[in-house]
Amino acid sequence: MEEFKKLTERINALSVANSMLHWDMATGAPKGGNASRAKFMGLIAAESFSLMISDEMKGYLEELEKNLGEQNDEMKALYREFKKVYESNKKIPAYEMQKYNELTANAQQLWEEAKESNNYSLFAPTLNELIQYNKRFIEYRGYEGHPYNTLLNDYEPGMTVEKLDEFFSKMKSTIVPLLKKVTESKKHIDTSFINRPVTKEKQEKISALLMRKLGYDLNRGMLKESAHPFTIGFGRNDVRITTNYHEDQFLSSFFSVIHETGHALYEQNVMEEIENTVLDSGISMGIHESQSRFYENIIGRSYEFWQNIYEEIMDILGDDFKDITIKQFYEASNEAKASLIRTEADELTYSLHIMIRYEIEKYMMGEEIDINELPRIWNEKVNEYLSLIPSSDTEGVLQDVHWSAGLYGYFPSYSLGNAYAAQLLTYMEKDMDVFGAIADGKVSDITKWLTEHIHKYGSLKTPSELIRQINGEELNADYYVEYLIKKYTKIYELNCEQ
Amino acid sequence: MEEFKKLTERINALSVANSMLHWDMATGAPKGGNASRAKFMGLIAAESFSLMISDEMKGYLEELEKNLGEQNDEMKALYREFKKVYESNKKIPAYEMQKYNELTANAQQLWEEAKESNNYSLFAPTLNELIQYNKRFIEYRGYEGHPYNTLLNDYEPGMTVEKLDEFFSKMKSTIVPLLKKVTESKKHIDTSFINRPVTKEKQEKISALLMRKLGYDLNRGMLKESAHPFTIGFGRNDVRITTNYHEDQFLSSFFSVIHETGHALYEQNVMEEIENTVLDSGISMGIHESQSRFYENIIGRSYEFWQNIYEEIMDILGDDFKDITIKQFYEASNEAKASLIRTEADELTYSLHIMIRYEIEKYMMGEEIDINELPRIWNEKVNEYLSLIPSSDTEGVLQDVHWSAGLYGYFPSYSLGNAYAAQLLTYMEKDMDVFGAIADGKVSDITKWLTEHIHKYGSLKTPSELIRQINGEELNADYYVEYLIKKYTKIYELNCEQ
Repeated sequence: MEEFKKLTERINALSVANSMLHWDMATGAPKGGNASRAKFMGLIAAESFSLMISDEMKGYLEELEKNLGEQNDEMKALYREFKKVYESNKKIPAYEMQKYNELTANAQQLWEEAKESNNYSLFAPTLNELIQYNKRFIEYRGYEGHPYNTLLNDYEPGMTVEKLDEFFSKMKSTIVPLLKKVTESKKHIDTSFINRPVTKEKQEKISALLMRKLGYDLNRGMLKESAHPFTIGFGRNDVRITTNYHEDQFLSSFFSVIHETGHALYEQNVMEEIENTVLDSGISMGIHESQSRFYENIIGRSYEFWQNIYEEIMDILGDDFKDITIKQFYEASNEAKASLIRTEADELTYSLHIMIRYEIEKYMMGEEIDINELPRIWNEKVNEYLSLIPSSDTEGVLQDVHWSAGLYGYFPSYSLGNAYAAQLLTYMEKDMDVFGAIADGKVSDITKWLTEHIHKYGSLKTPSELIRQINGEELNADYYVEYLIKKYTKIYELNCEQ
Repeated sequence: MEEFKKLTERINALSVANSMLHWDMATGAPKGGNASRAKFMGLIAAESFSLMISDEMKGYLEELEKNLGEQNDEMKALYREFKKVYESNKKIPAYEMQKYNELTANAQQLWEEAKESNNYSLFAPTLNELIQYNKRFIEYRGYEGHPYNTLLNDYEPGMTVEKLDEFFSKMKSTIVPLLKKVTESKKHIDTSFINRPVTKEKQEKISALLMRKLGYDLNRGMLKESAHPFTIGFGRNDVRITTNYHEDQFLSSFFSVIHETGHALYEQNVMEEIENTVLDSGISMGIHESQSRFYENIIGRSYEFWQNIYEEIMDILGDDFKDITIKQFYEASNEAKASLIRTEADELTYSLHIMIRYEIEKYMMGEEIDINELPRIWNEKVNEYLSLIPSSDTEGVLQDVHWSAGLYGYFPSYSLGNAYAAQLLTYMEKDMDVFGAIADGKVSDITKWLTEHIHKYGSLKTPSELIRQINGEELNADYYVEYLIKKYTKIYELNCEQ
């Protein structure tokens, strides 16, 4: 079985190589090389793909199947991951997969240009090709129930349209009335100061402060800038993050850095025993997002966190912010208000943004679509759920990087992540004083708890195994709903009205 | 034969991937990831290696051999390159090659640490391993005459110890008396101003000015910083360079940028027809160095170049340099004087530095060595040829990146490059007024000539084919010797003494 492990390491190295080409592209590579890079990435992905569906792989999987019970956890997890890839992909011709990967590598550049110039038609033909490839791949791979289920399952094992329809229906029935109360409440949150200019140099200092406070290991990671913040790992010893600075919205980068640091901590804290295997990153996008959201929302948007960093951040912000109190920072970080941009949305309305994308992806994958209709459909849904109308496609259908990166079925993970995070918070509070630790600058205690229950396992355990092992319970959206009600009732002083 | 071409493209993509990992490592990657990256690079190199020595490759090569005369230039060159690799490497076990690549990836870090802390013993065991691997590989690959010939041939097809012994003997018999005359001449060159501090910001502006003047396409390349300046290409559409700034030696980065831009122009100007193949970089290290040296020494160190950039560079340097004339910059750029550091050596003494390395490598590959003796041997040779004694290994045996990068047999290319460059200058002057073009800011005319005769061919033609096609002549060191005598006679006003 050493040979099987070696084969998986070769596949992992090829995947790291493509991640590096991607990182390079997104963080300042010369544009003239984009077309060539797309070709190189396509060839490397094909190389990896052909190993994953090789007869050699097939042989190892069959052999492992015979005595799987006797294998250790690492072997079992490797078997699970590669069996899944083998089963679902052996029917996709390597040639088509390569073309698709080339398309994806080019798409990001096109999307960036389309977004910058608010010109949907620049990106639409490529978007359509990406969607058609995904639909063809679903046909090759097969599906149960709705075709979209196959993609959902890629990011969250076991997830289906049926479960998500119910999940979002619960969110909708809770958030809409809660948002209504918030909107109608007499509480005024002062957000006027958050657009005061903060230079990039100061924001870079804030990023450094946050990464230090949260315990991000800069010997095994780094921060750079890119069009859209992201985290990328090259094994647990090199997990990098990006952000994007706007001088008149310093909280945008502030929370991006915390969010991405949450992702990065998950991967940096995977146990050493499985380093440099395909298992040394997160198990699912939902669990990954539960970590980024835990750091971003539960820690970063808490009163206690602002309390703890107040003096240091005031030193950086300087006189321009000397009139702002801890409470003002805290409340401004938690204003609930319908808005157009997902990445800038608050915790309360966030799930509505995800619903829009979920419904559009379900439509993309389930029906014959007219690509030119997407901007209109998008805008109608924004109007329906958020009572707003995007003034341009840049702040509408073009706002997210995901579709250009081939990430279809990914969006629901954000909401699942929020739900997992609230559930983990409830369990954690039984073991420790979570917000007391935050106030005392002991985020490391929280990270320790998360490492013990989540991070260290990497991909060894499935999402439901991870959650069940803590308290015997499965994913339960009620924790998140309760968390939101409690949080916003307090901030907006809704007690009397409830 | 489409399948053969496709196979070579897969190999090229893997090589690009490893180049990207290398670029990333050398330009600021977090150190914690070094060991893992070494492993990944080893696995990817092994992947590429196994394709290069595969039965599939063997089959294509045998088939091509049957009707090679009917193939186009690209196919012939691909055959030549892969036949060479196949023949010379099929005997090296993939496992050993992988270990060697892992060792190399780690070695650079160790060398940097050893150099920084002037601690040869930190690097010595790894250096010894690298040498032993190379000797074993030579045995596997076979050799004619001296074992070192096999490595020399990797960088300069057809080069041998026998030829180089003669080459360097000619250099030695010319340079030593010329250097003596220069040292004894009454001419005083003022270099006191070159150590005046120039901020990194100003030096970055100078880099930008130089890249623009020389016609480096920044849409298909970029400049970053690294411990040792280098050029790296990911196909002709993305050829990057690095430099290294020292506030008190602004001419160090000045000439590094010109040198690396020379390398980069060669690769950027390869014909489009062979882009993204293994043929779209230079044919040999000697020819590559002839281009970097042409830009650095013939263009960059000419009076006419300083004349052309004078006003713009004075705008950047500011008042601190307002007393310095064009002639002072020109003369200070051409001071000939024995020194310890190769990369800072002048044109006249440069070949003496190469001789030291050539002789040590010949010894490394030809005899049983004691690794702990290398610093002593190095210092003795420096004393013998340059009449100097290094005060530390940092400015002695540890100064160059090459051995840590596995580049054995590479050093002689620098001297061959100088010789080719002088030969090309002689031919070029028959077609155009070279120094007139430089004075007029028309370096593009020179680049056009070089593109037409050298750059555009990439690896399509061998070094000797390239040189012969211009004037029917082979490499001839006399041109370089004449060039040096002419240049230094003028600068040091040796006429009366000759």
